[in-house]
Amino acid sequence: MARARVAVVGASGFAGALAAAIVERHPELDLCAVTARSEAGARLDELYPRYRVPRRLEEFEPDAIAERADAAIVGYPHKAAAPAVKALRERGLKVVDLSADFRLDRERYERYYQRHEAPELLDGAVYGLPELRRDEIRGADLVAAPGCYPTAALLALAPLRELMTDAIVDAKSGVSGAGREPTHTTHFVSVDENVNAYKVEGHRHRAELEQELGEEVPITFTPHLVPVDQGLLASCYVRTRTELAPSELRELFAERYASEPFVELAPGPPGVREVRDTNFCRIHATVEPATGRVLVFSAIDNLWKGAAGQAVQDLNLMLGLEETAGLR
Amino acid sequence: MARARVAVVGASGFAGALAAAIVERHPELDLCAVTARSEAGARLDELYPRYRVPRRLEEFEPDAIAERADAAIVGYPHKAAAPAVKALRERGLKVVDLSADFRLDRERYERYYQRHEAPELLDGAVYGLPELRRDEIRGADLVAAPGCYPTAALLALAPLRELMTDAIVDAKSGVSGAGREPTHTTHFVSVDENVNAYKVEGHRHRAELEQELGEEVPITFTPHLVPVDQGLLASCYVRTRTELAPSELRELFAERYASEPFVELAPGPPGVREVRDTNFCRIHATVEPATGRVLVFSAIDNLWKGAAGQAVQDLNLMLGLEETAGLR
Amino acid sequence: MARARVAVVGASGFAGALAAAIVERHPELDLCAVTARSEAGARLDELYPRYRVPRRLEEFEPDAIAERADAAIVGYPHKAAAPAVKALRERGLKVVDLSADFRLDRERYERYYQRHEAPELLDGAVYGLPELRRDEIRGADLVAAPGCYPTAALLALAPLRELMTDAIVDAKSGVSGAGREPTHTTHFVSVDENVNAYKVEGHRHRAELEQELGEEVPITFTPHLVPVDQGLLASCYVRTRTELAPSELRELFAERYASEPFVELAPGPPGVREVRDTNFCRIHATVEPATGRVLVFSAIDNLWKGAAGQAVQDLNLMLGLEETAGLR
Amino acid sequence: MARARVAVVGASGFAGALAAAIVERHPELDLCAVTARSEAGARLDELYPRYRVPRRLEEFEPDAIAERADAAIVGYPHKAAAPAVKALRERGLKVVDLSADFRLDRERYERYYQRHEAPELLDGAVYGLPELRRDEIRGADLVAAPGCYPTAALLALAPLRELMTDAIVDAKSGVSGAGREPTHTTHFVSVDENVNAYKVEGHRHRAELEQELGEEVPITFTPHLVPVDQGLLASCYVRTRTELAPSELRELFAERYASEPFVELAPGPPGVREVRDTNFCRIHATVEPATGRVLVFSAIDNLWKGAAGQAVQDLNLMLGLEETAGLR
Repeated sequence: MARARVAVVGASGFAGALAAAIVERHPELDLCAVTARSEAGARLDELYPRYRVPRRLEEFEPDAIAERADAAIVGYPHKAAAPAVKALRERGLKVVDLSADFRLDRERYERYYQRHEAPELLDGAVYGLPELRRDEIRGADLVAAPGCYPTAALLALAPLRELMTDAIVDAKSGVSGAGREPTHTTHFVSVDENVNAYKVEGHRHRAELEQELGEEVPITFTPHLVPVDQGLLASCYVRTRTELAPSELRELFAERYASEPFVELAPGPPGVREVRDTNFCRIHATVEPATGRVLVFSAIDNLWKGAAGQAVQDLNLMLGLEETAGLR
Repeated sequence: MARARVAVVGASGFAGALAAAIVERHPELDLCAVTARSEAGARLDELYPRYRVPRRLEEFEPDAIAERADAAIVGYPHKAAAPAVKALRERGLKVVDLSADFRLDRERYERYYQRHEAPELLDGAVYGLPELRRDEIRGADLVAAPGCYPTAALLALAPLRELMTDAIVDAKSGVSGAGREPTHTTHFVSVDENVNAYKVEGHRHRAELEQELGEEVPITFTPHLVPVDQGLLASCYVRTRTELAPSELRELFAERYASEPFVELAPGPPGVREVRDTNFCRIHATVEPATGRVLVFSAIDNLWKGAAGQAVQDLNLMLGLEETAGLR
Repeated sequence: MARARVAVVGASGFAGALAAAIVERHPELDLCAVTARSEAGARLDELYPRYRVPRRLEEFEPDAIAERADAAIVGYPHKAAAPAVKALRERGLKVVDLSADFRLDRERYERYYQRHEAPELLDGAVYGLPELRRDEIRGADLVAAPGCYPTAALLALAPLRELMTDAIVDAKSGVSGAGREPTHTTHFVSVDENVNAYKVEGHRHRAELEQELGEEVPITFTPHLVPVDQGLLASCYVRTRTELAPSELRELFAERYASEPFVELAPGPPGVREVRDTNFCRIHATVEPATGRVLVFSAIDNLWKGAAGQAVQDLNLMLGLEETAGLR
Repeated sequence: MARARVAVVGASGFAGALAAAIVERHPELDLCAVTARSEAGARLDELYPRYRVPRRLEEFEPDAIAERADAAIVGYPHKAAAPAVKALRERGLKVVDLSADFRLDRERYERYYQRHEAPELLDGAVYGLPELRRDEIRGADLVAAPGCYPTAALLALAPLRELMTDAIVDAKSGVSGAGREPTHTTHFVSVDENVNAYKVEGHRHRAELEQELGEEVPITFTPHLVPVDQGLLASCYVRTRTELAPSELRELFAERYASEPFVELAPGPPGVREVRDTNFCRIHATVEPATGRVLVFSAIDNLWKGAAGQAVQDLNLMLGLEETAGLR
C-alpha cells in the first residue's frame, strides 16, 4: 500500500498536537494537514516548539481535507467531535477520534454526556483499545480511542475480568490530562505542592469501564490530580471469586500480555517516569498477603498510550501497517 | 504551672527540626536544648535556615539534658529511639517519642520491626493520637506520636470503626515523609515527574492501623510517593455493614469531630495544599452513589499533624496546657 | 490608639487574599471587610481554604467601606486601582495600594503604563519600601507598595547606590507573581520543567528601579519564570566606581541593614525556600575574585515581602504600630 | 565502513546511562558493553527502566573491552576518568570522555582541578564542541565533551567572541546536572520550591570558558540550581566594543549558525522545555534598547547537548558518520 496521508483535526490541543508530531515522524504516514478552531493561522511549532512540526494550522474544511487525506485523527472535545467525524466519514476517510463521542453505546453516552450528534455512526465505531479489540480495530473505519483513565484501568483489570467481584481504581493523573485550556484547576499555583481527588461521586470515565468490563462488578473509580505534567498511575484493588496465589496471578498477566508490544510487566510497582514520552503501559500485579486482595498498578503516559500514541497505534492497525510503526 | 522547659533530642531530622521550631515559638514552652548525633556542633539555623532557630546542636547527654529540661521530644529513628527515651524517662522527663518504638504492643512491634530495646516502658506508653486517646495522653509520661500515614488513615476511619467490614487506604505522601537522609529514592530526579506505589506487599504502618482499628477488618494500606515536599493524602474506600445514606455519613463525621480543634470537615475532597504548614487534618467523606461504598479523603501535612505538630499537641496535653497552644 | 479597622479591597487575587489573612491574624488590626469584583458573594475560605479567613467577599462600595474601616489595602491591578484608591482617600481612609498606579511619578507612569487616572493623588503618595523610605511612610496617607521584582532588586542594590556604575538584575520569580488569572503562561504544563526569560527588551518594573536608583546607571533587568509557586531570587551583577574588598562590601551591607527587622544577611547565596511564607529579604553580597565584580543575591517571598507582607509592614508604620506586628 | 562497536564505560551515572541508550538505538552503532564501578552486576534497565537498555553492567576490564569495541564513551567523574581513558587509548580505541580530565590544557587543569593523571594524552585531545571545533574532532582519537554549563554558554557567546568586552553568564541548571549521587543538595526537599546560586566565587566551568573565549574578557559565570530535572538555561549579558543594531546581531547569529544541525535560533527567549530530551541548543539574542547591552539566552538539555547527546555527536564525527545519526 502507498504511504497514507493523514490529517490531524484539532491539533492545537495537547493530544492533537502530539498526534501531529507522531504522524510527522512516522515512517509510513504523511502528515498532510493540521487544523484548529480558535488557533487557525498559528504555526504548530510556535504553539508547541518542542514538537518541531513546522506547519500552519488551518481552518477545518472537510472537503479540503478529504482531497488531501486518506485518514484523520480528530482531537476535538466531546460533542464538537461528532459532527467533524461525521463530515470526514461521509467523505470516505478512516477516522480515529480522541473524544468520548464514539466510545460508548448510545444509551450510555446519553446517560453520561448528552444527546448524541451522530448516532448513525455508532454501530460502526470500535472502541480503540488494541489489547482488547485488535481484530475489530483492524477492520474498522471509525475507531474511538479510549480516554487515559480507562486505558490504564482496563489494561490493569482486563486479565482479571472473569475472576473479579469488586474493584477500586484509585487513579493519579498528570495535569496535561486536563487539557490545554487555562483554568483555576490547571493554574500552576493550584497544582504545585498539591494532591487531591476530584469528581469523587462519579466520573464519566466510569462509563467506559462499565461498558468494557460489565456492570455486574461494582467498580469504584476515583481520579486524583498530581503535580506531574505527563503520566497516569492507576492503583487497582480487586477482590476475586477465589483467592489467587501470587504465582497464578503472575502467570495470568504474563500469558495475557505475552505478545503485546506496548504492555510491559514490571518487577515492582511502576513509576510514571518509566513510561514518560512512550506508548508503553507498565503493569505490576501482586497479591497482598495480609488480605488476599489483588493489587494491580498500571502506569501510562496519558498523552501517549492515553491519547495520541494510542490513536496512532489504532491507525496503524486500520491501515494494515506494523502496529508499532512510528511509536518507538 | 511555670513555663515548661523542653529539649528536642534528634533535632537534625525533618520532624525534630520542625518540633524545635514550634517549641521555640511556643508561648508557654522554652526550648532549652537541641541535640543531634552526627550533626552535633552545627547550628540548627544553618541546617534549616527557614526555621530561624538560632541554636547549636549538642551531643545527647541524658544527665545534662535532665538538668535543664522538664520534657523532651525525641526525633530519632526507630530502634535508636528506645534507649534515648529510656534514659530520659529514668531521669524523670516527660517524653513524646516520634519513632515507632513505643507505638505498638510488644508482640506487634517485634513482628513488624525487631526485638524491643526497652520493653519495660511499653506498659506506660500511650499512642499519641489525641482525637482517639486524649484522656490517656493527658495522664501519660511517655507518649508515642503516631506516624504520618496512620494519622491520616485513622482520622479518616475512626468514625467508621464500628461499621466497617473492609477498608482500603491508598495513601500519597510527600517526600519529607521519607526523611532527611539522601538516598536514590529521595533524589530529586527520582521523584520529579513521578508517582509510584511502594512496599505494596505490606508496610509497617499497617501495624498501627490494626492495633487501633482491630484486626477483624481486612485493611489494605498502600503508600505512594508523590512530587510534593510536605503533604499526605489518604484516600479510603470502605465497605460498611449496612449502607449509609450520605446524610447519615455526614452526621457521623460531624458529630465525631464537632469539638476537635485540628480536624476540619471540608465541603469536597481536600487538597494537601490546604493543610500545608498547619496541624489540621482536613477530611471529606461521601457515599459513592453507584456502589454504595464510603469514600473518605483525609489530608495532613506529614511533618505537622503527621509528626512534629502532633508531638507538640501531645505535649500540650501532657503538661496541662491549652491543646492548641503554639500550633496556630 | 484604638485597634484599627482594615478593609482589603480586591481580596480575591493572590496578594489581596494573603493581605486579608495577615490582617485577620494581626494582633492590632481588625479585618472589617473583604471585597472583590467578579468573585463577590463567594467566601474567601472557599477560594483560599489554606488561609482560613471565614468571610464573604462583598462588592466594593466606598461609602459602606468608609463607615466600617479606618484603612484599606487595595489589591486591584494597575489602572483599576487608581479610582478605588481615590474613592477611599476621599473618604479619609489611609490606603496602601498594591498596584503600580501610585509607585511612579506621573511622567514615568504614563511612559511605562498609560494615562494616569488620579494624578492629583500622586504628590502625596509614598513609595512603600520601608528600608528606603521609612520616615515618609510613617507620615503618609497613601503608600504604594513596590512590586516584587523591584523589592528584591532595590534591597540588593540600595547599599551600592552611590558606588555603582553598571548593574544587571537577573531575576527568577515563582508563578504566583503572575497573578491568579489562568493563562497559557500560568498553566501547570507551561511552567513545569521549564525556565525561561520573558519581556527581555524591557519590563515595566524597570521604571521603579530607575526612579529609586537614578537613571545615570544603566540597569538591565531581566525577569525569568521558574517552577516555584512563591519565591523570587534577584541575582545582581554590579560594577562599582572603585573595586571593593570583600570585607568592605560585607561591612557596607552590615551597616546598612543592621537594624532592619526584615533584612537578613546570609552567609552564602540564599535560596527562596529560606524565606517562603515570611516577610524576610535574605541577601548575600560578595566580590568575585576573578573579575572584581560585585555579586548580590536577594531572595524574597514574592507574595509576602513582595506584596501583602510589605503592605502590612507599610500599614503598621502608617498607623504608628510596631513595624513587625502581625508579620512574624 | 562497518558498523562501529561502542562501549560505554561508567554507564550507571546519568550521562553514561543516556549515552548507552542513545548508542543502543543508533542506526549505525552497536552497543557492545556497558560497565560500572559500584553497580557492576546490576542491569541497566533496572537502574533506568525508562531507557529500556536490557544489558548487564560489567566491571571495567580494558582488555575485555578492547576485544569487543572500536570506540568508547567514558562517563566517569574527573580524575577517575583519566586512567580509564588512558587504558582504552593504549588499546587503540577512539574515546569520547565526558569528564573534565581532557578538556583543559595542563596548566589550567592543574589550577582548577588537581595534578593530571595522564598528561601525555592532552596534546592529542580535542575539546568536543562541534560548533567550534568540528574539523579537529573529525580527526581526533580522543575528544573531551564539554560540560553542560560551558556548552550553553559557549554557543551563546561564540558569535560575539571578537566583539565582546565584558560578559556575565547567569546559568540555571536542572538537578540531573549534579549527578546521580544522593546528597543533601540533590534531595527533593532541598530543591523543590527553591532556586539558589552556588559556587558564586568561582566555578570550575569558568576554566572552559576562559580557554575557549580567551582570558582578556572578564567573564562572570554564576550557576544556579532550579527545580527541574533536565534542562539548562544560560542568560548572558554582554558588552560589545561597539553597540550593535538588533538587525546586525540577528544576522551575526543567523550566519554563524546557518548550517548547524543542532542550533536553533528562536523568535523569543527559549524555555528549557523546548529542548527537553533533544540534542538542540536553542538560542535567542537581542539588544536591550535602554542600555544597548546584548542579551543572549541559550537553552539545552544538560544530559543531551550538555553531555551524552554531544558525546554521540562527537563520536559520529570521529567515525565519519552523519553528524546527526541517532540524535533525532
